[in-house]
Amino acid sequence: MLPFDLSLYLVTDRSLSLGRTLSEVVEAAVKGGVTMVQLREKDCSGKEFYELAMLMKTLLKPYKVPLIINDRLDIALACDADGLHIGQDDIPYPIVRKLMGKDKIIGLSVENIEDTIEANNLDVDYIGISPVFSTLTKTDTASALGLDGVKEITRISKHPSVGIGGINQSNAKDIIHAGADGISVVSAIMSANDPSLAASELRKIVNESKNKK
Amino acid sequence: MLPFDLSLYLVTDRSLSLGRTLSEVVEAAVKGGVTMVQLREKDCSGKEFYELAMLMKTLLKPYKVPLIINDRLDIALACDADGLHIGQDDIPYPIVRKLMGKDKIIGLSVENIEDTIEANNLDVDYIGISPVFSTLTKTDTASALGLDGVKEITRISKHPSVGIGGINQSNAKDIIHAGADGISVVSAIMSANDPSLAASELRKIVNESKNKK
Repeated sequence: MLPFDLSLYLVTDRSLSLGRTLSEVVEAAVKGGVTMVQLREKDCSGKEFYELAMLMKTLLKPYKVPLIINDRLDIALACDADGLHIGQDDIPYPIVRKLMGKDKIIGLSVENIEDTIEANNLDVDYIGISPVFSTLTKTDTASALGLDGVKEITRISKHPSVGIGGINQSNAKDIIHAGADGISVVSAIMSANDPSLAASELRKIVNESKNKK
Repeated sequence: MLPFDLSLYLVTDRSLSLGRTLSEVVEAAVKGGVTMVQLREKDCSGKEFYELAMLMKTLLKPYKVPLIINDRLDIALACDADGLHIGQDDIPYPIVRKLMGKDKIIGLSVENIEDTIEANNLDVDYIGISPVFSTLTKTDTASALGLDGVKEITRISKHPSVGIGGINQSNAKDIIHAGADGISVVSAIMSANDPSLAASELRKIVNESKNKK
């Protein structure tokens, strides 16, 4: 499997890019220090999603930053992405693993302790702890776990983890101190005036917090 | 590839089943004479779609009626369906064929002459001529082709074809006489008081119309 670093994991949302293209924002963010990119597109056709994924793959390749597709196993297979991120309501993990193969990165969202215990029985590559804080960018998630929730889940989980939901410069260090291996952000980078600078500052916070652990 | 018969092709829509379960309506329809079933589910999670597909696969197997999945290549792969039906806005056909393999049935919707000419360059197994008449059950389609459109498309196409959109007992024979190999219906069976009887009557019309060609 491709080595991966969960430190600063950008999840895309074109609607939050302030009119800039996805390529523009993602490339700036990667130059600033993003370590993984998840393409999350909810309201577009399969064709458009596939074309965007191919664009992202080409863009990320020289940076050796893994491209993870959200939910859509078919898009991940079609563009031969580095991985897939699934939630509790997606195609069951064992089938996803079988179709993706053992060399791909597969992440699974966990929303509570039960999900975390179940994930321990699966050879997923990481878990996404979701949502840490309440957020406007994802409306179909469970109630916010808070920092105590992150602590409890990282204590129980045998997998590397990344927190997601409402994470920004003001609370990034708390997520790492609560036990997560990285932070996942959407608007903190997608909507930043300077996505490269935002990524660079967030990455610095994560690195410093990890060193102090 | 599994042999298939386009004569009477049921496309599902749970919202039109008048409160009956999908299994109930589909099994009755197959007993009545449906020759293919396409599972089309737009507003459900990947998990639910997968579970429905597995249910349909088990249900249809003893009848040797092929199960075709609409749009979602990942669901088709996950449940090892007999085939996949894609539209012009889905993942491009060559990639779909590569991932599905040569033994699966792949159908492609064509909405005009240009699509039909392009489809002639692909080894799709059939085309869906869509929509023949305007319909309320699918809102993202192009303008209605009418019987003249069906005639023109079937004249040009090198592939077997099925008409879809607003087809019922009153116009089924016209579709066959216009050159299609079968009819595809949604509400004419899904919303019928007696789906088995509706299927049986439609099948009879198709068979008689084919004999008179």
